[in-house]
Amino acid sequence: MVRIVQVGLGPLGVRAAREFLERDMGRIVGAVDPVHAGRPLAELVEGADPAVTIAPDLASLGCWGDTDAAIVTTRSALPDCFETLRDLLGLGVHVVSSCEELSYPWLQHPIMSQELHERAVKARRVVLGTGINPGFLLDTFPVALTGVCHTVRRVVAGRVQDATTRRIPFQKKIGATLSMEAFQAEVEKGTLRHVGLPESLHFICHYLSIPFDDWSETLEPVVAERDLECGLGPIPAGHAAGVRQVAVATRGGEEVVRLEFQAAIGQAEPRDWVELDSDPPLRAVIEGGVHGDAATTSILLNAIGSVREAEPGLRTMADVRPPRCQVRRDA
Amino acid sequence: MVRIVQVGLGPLGVRAAREFLERDMGRIVGAVDPVHAGRPLAELVEGADPAVTIAPDLASLGCWGDTDAAIVTTRSALPDCFETLRDLLGLGVHVVSSCEELSYPWLQHPIMSQELHERAVKARRVVLGTGINPGFLLDTFPVALTGVCHTVRRVVAGRVQDATTRRIPFQKKIGATLSMEAFQAEVEKGTLRHVGLPESLHFICHYLSIPFDDWSETLEPVVAERDLECGLGPIPAGHAAGVRQVAVATRGGEEVVRLEFQAAIGQAEPRDWVELDSDPPLRAVIEGGVHGDAATTSILLNAIGSVREAEPGLRTMADVRPPRCQVRRDA
Repeated sequence: MVRIVQVGLGPLGVRAAREFLERDMGRIVGAVDPVHAGRPLAELVEGADPAVTIAPDLASLGCWGDTDAAIVTTRSALPDCFETLRDLLGLGVHVVSSCEELSYPWLQHPIMSQELHERAVKARRVVLGTGINPGFLLDTFPVALTGVCHTVRRVVAGRVQDATTRRIPFQKKIGATLSMEAFQAEVEKGTLRHVGLPESLHFICHYLSIPFDDWSETLEPVVAERDLECGLGPIPAGHAAGVRQVAVATRGGEEVVRLEFQAAIGQAEPRDWVELDSDPPLRAVIEGGVHGDAATTSILLNAIGSVREAEPGLRTMADVRPPRCQVRRDA
Repeated sequence: MVRIVQVGLGPLGVRAAREFLERDMGRIVGAVDPVHAGRPLAELVEGADPAVTIAPDLASLGCWGDTDAAIVTTRSALPDCFETLRDLLGLGVHVVSSCEELSYPWLQHPIMSQELHERAVKARRVVLGTGINPGFLLDTFPVALTGVCHTVRRVVAGRVQDATTRRIPFQKKIGATLSMEAFQAEVEKGTLRHVGLPESLHFICHYLSIPFDDWSETLEPVVAERDLECGLGPIPAGHAAGVRQVAVATRGGEEVVRLEFQAAIGQAEPRDWVELDSDPPLRAVIEGGVHGDAATTSILLNAIGSVREAEPGLRTMADVRPPRCQVRRDA
């Protein structure tokens, strides 16, 4: 039985909290979200202890004595979570977070990462960023598959999703229905980009010791070839049905790692895959792909056990034992 | 750079030692095998230090001061390796071994396992059993895939191999060419059985906390439907083309885990796969399958890094961070 604090009560945080209780993993002893401050947690999360009131910030939250871990589902950029993570370490709890940049924080934020690492070591606690993408499919999974290889020359991994049945905010996030001009405008505002591909790319290069001299990330619309429909409304042919992002690391002009992320309305053959140019060669496919919403909260919860067993410090998914789903089948 | 001792110089041990040097992972400072005692290691393993002479046993091997790890590739049954593992811990080195029963030693040998664990903790060293099957495809891999799941109701995993291009001892081991009577006689002698399916089954049930009240393992021939040829000679229709083993755990008569291992001459669609009846559902396929000979030595070598970072004790693949292939691309 684990005692946790849930920090962030957006859709992901509420879902994580609800599943934590459904799975009978332990107790939620506190919750933080300025938007919902003052409300009982049970109003948002069925089954929560009626005594738990949502706090506006960490400082307002009492009773840290027996807390094991915090689940942080607030922001994608590490600088936006940094103070929260630092303060949680000060309170002596482990942290599992969906912050995308935290999946490989050393890439964009080496100084913050070093500070978090030192504070975590001092507090004898662990901070871990995880998720499905980034966090598993395009980084942890391909790196783990190389465990059976003698040499690896090139790593290619991809995630192709059919967004037809996904929630409307997701369809909006991938630019579905937008004209080419409107799509480009959203790209320039930075609202369309799925965060994490560079982190996954550098995770792979770092943990597999793959040298590279250049890397890039591109983003383009998936153009509807015929009229389509989605939760947001009609998509005329020629408008965007979704987005395609590709991150590539090269050495001497030759690709050594390639990651593809594509999500579109009406996308054929959704799947996640890894292809290793290696000895022995290896091609793994997850047919139909992993459902993003359900899987993200699952891996966050499953990672709590990994974090509690890990060496203190700022860790990544390559450092810890693989999260696993321990279900009480009678639950 | 790692300093290792290679214990066991059968085909697997020789290959592991050769690849260790090819990959420039470090130095082989000693080697043990009674069959080859007195010969220079370099006679069996190209590139080995000419000063290293193969010792008949651990006691005859000097110079343990700076040794990091031993690779043990001697036997499939833990009791046959126990003294070697115990003595290696006494000498203060980590151990990575291909001993099949060591992949989940608590099943058949809880007392030996407890003793090894206590000795490893005391020596601040790690003992790990690994391999492809058991060790990865039918245990570590499915357990790691559940990391993205909220609940798991049933786990099915399988390995289907085409033995046509495998080495002759492998073809012999799976009973290819034998008549039904001869096959049955080999089964009764115990020579045909691939060791490790029960270990993988219990590994999954243990680490996923899947309750079960019964389990079984079956073994039957794959019968040639037409005349075939293999390295051993002709296989008349009606004779064995290979072997099929199935291990199942049940609860209340219902299957909760099912593992299938099949290797035969002329086998169609070789592949490794995992199918989780879970939320979200998941089906992963390694197309063509992982080549057993090459992958086994790879994972042994790749696991050295995992072992050096793990908590002291007798560990399994579920406890340690995933092995990964760190290649010097210019090597």
